[in-house]
Amino acid sequence: MSRAGTPDPARAIAAGDRRALAKAITAVESGDPASDALLRAVFRRTGKIPIVGLTGPLGVGKSSLINLLVAHLRAQGKTVGVVAVDPTSPFSGGSVLGDRIRLERRPGDPGVFFRSMASRGAAGGIAASTRDVARLLEAAGFDVVLVETVGSGQVDVAIRDVASTRIVVLVPHLGDEVQTLKAGLFEIADVFCVNKSDLPGAETAERDLAELASLGPAPDGWRSRIVRTSTVVPSGIPELWKAVEAHERFVAEAPGHLAEQRRRLEQEIVGRVRDLVAAEIAARLEAEPSLRHLVDRVVARELDPRSAAERLLPRSRR
Amino acid sequence: MSRAGTPDPARAIAAGDRRALAKAITAVESGDPASDALLRAVFRRTGKIPIVGLTGPLGVGKSSLINLLVAHLRAQGKTVGVVAVDPTSPFSGGSVLGDRIRLERRPGDPGVFFRSMASRGAAGGIAASTRDVARLLEAAGFDVVLVETVGSGQVDVAIRDVASTRIVVLVPHLGDEVQTLKAGLFEIADVFCVNKSDLPGAETAERDLAELASLGPAPDGWRSRIVRTSTVVPSGIPELWKAVEAHERFVAEAPGHLAEQRRRLEQEIVGRVRDLVAAEIAARLEAEPSLRHLVDRVVARELDPRSAAERLLPRSRR
Repeated sequence: MSRAGTPDPARAIAAGDRRALAKAITAVESGDPASDALLRAVFRRTGKIPIVGLTGPLGVGKSSLINLLVAHLRAQGKTVGVVAVDPTSPFSGGSVLGDRIRLERRPGDPGVFFRSMASRGAAGGIAASTRDVARLLEAAGFDVVLVETVGSGQVDVAIRDVASTRIVVLVPHLGDEVQTLKAGLFEIADVFCVNKSDLPGAETAERDLAELASLGPAPDGWRSRIVRTSTVVPSGIPELWKAVEAHERFVAEAPGHLAEQRRRLEQEIVGRVRDLVAAEIAARLEAEPSLRHLVDRVVARELDPRSAAERLLPRSRR
Repeated sequence: MSRAGTPDPARAIAAGDRRALAKAITAVESGDPASDALLRAVFRRTGKIPIVGLTGPLGVGKSSLINLLVAHLRAQGKTVGVVAVDPTSPFSGGSVLGDRIRLERRPGDPGVFFRSMASRGAAGGIAASTRDVARLLEAAGFDVVLVETVGSGQVDVAIRDVASTRIVVLVPHLGDEVQTLKAGLFEIADVFCVNKSDLPGAETAERDLAELASLGPAPDGWRSRIVRTSTVVPSGIPELWKAVEAHERFVAEAPGHLAEQRRRLEQEIVGRVRDLVAAEIAARLEAEPSLRHLVDRVVARELDPRSAAERLLPRSRR
């Protein structure tokens, strides 16, 4: 694929070329088809490292936690790639951007690579881009990938099926809320992190979560771990990472391990078929002479959008 | 479509049968195909009333504002349907559920109908369901529909193309954040509501917004209005509604009005074609004998998901 004089991007990335990596991520983020060949090429070298997702409401201190986790992993000699997924929302987008600026100030350490990613488009798109970027980071040789998302419904989906271990970060004094959220929380948390554990109420929060966790293990048999952390006077970080490692080991040894891997890859393949067909449909409709007339009739309320859509289906499908 | 003895649901809804309305909304929310015929039937009677979207970060007081707007509209003799869109997220979901409970305590007034809707699935799905529910409410004879969404990127999309007037609710002391958010905010706000204007900083917030608004009108020529409100000692509510009415009048008289209506309906039709084809693809793949083998090869990392997807495309499309 490479022109004379242009180094092969897959090789450049594997050889540690950070500029090539950054360029490739930008291509994924912007949906540039040039990233396609690269992602095909790197795929076979992926699927072996922990992809750790962190999610939780705004203001629980996820970015500080990531900073400390990165420092902890670096002290163990591990290299770390970090992806932060920003939702498109103008509201949360702002404060998240602020966090980004703090995080990106980690100069001079080639063992850490940080990248934030805007999550334009649909939830499926976010998950797909996050997965692709995580694969590029793995191909670049990082030992661990951390994925941070802010807690907004559709973005959480990005880590549900992409991360191998999912950490949900909470703070003390959730009380009633946690009760309401039971089901939702346990759906995505392999590890609960009660951050700001220097605040009053941390023990109660931990006890509440433990009570919920005691209701039963996840479908795969894993029992969510609960870890208390603080980022003011750093504490609990080694324990948090140990909980992640315990989950990674559990998953690798679980009898359902391969089935789950299959399920995710099958879902990805089916999603890609759907996207390819959808793109083709959109292109075809743009050139469809009857579309204009049908829209006219819908605007005039003579025809409803459902009936108009049916008339635009390819002949073979009606 | 109706069986003997079963009243036609479209007629029941138009006649003010609230139970039939609630049932129809549940059908839309759960993707029940039974809602299809009904939505086709009601479409021609829709598109005439204001659909007012309210969005903004958690904690700015959107639910209290809605309560006061409803009271204001009721005092004017207008009937109101309210749709609240909850994101799937366990985090924001909790507090929103709390709000719901407060709002639903409005017994005995048949001029108000309140319904919350969980936003499972992709962003496109949320927008489509919200639009369908708004149409059912219009068919049920309500004079105004209010749509509330919590401020999480993907959910905001639900009001961007569904509402005829979009209100963004903010609170004082946004300072730096507002600067970062400029572009995003103006993309969705026809009216800015600075709520909690009894707090210090309300004037500054209003001035900051006014400064941003002075940078230029929206593409359609509308200049965003800014209204200060308070829900503690209620104030600004009549002004907020006047700003909505001004925007509704502006849109109705704008030269681009029909073009915008066309654009939205065309987008809806194209989206429906895509959804129909995607559903068909999913059904076909489930029965596809080669899928299992291809997934095996992807699991073994012999083949990448992109190449597998291409092999599954219908023959005519490769």
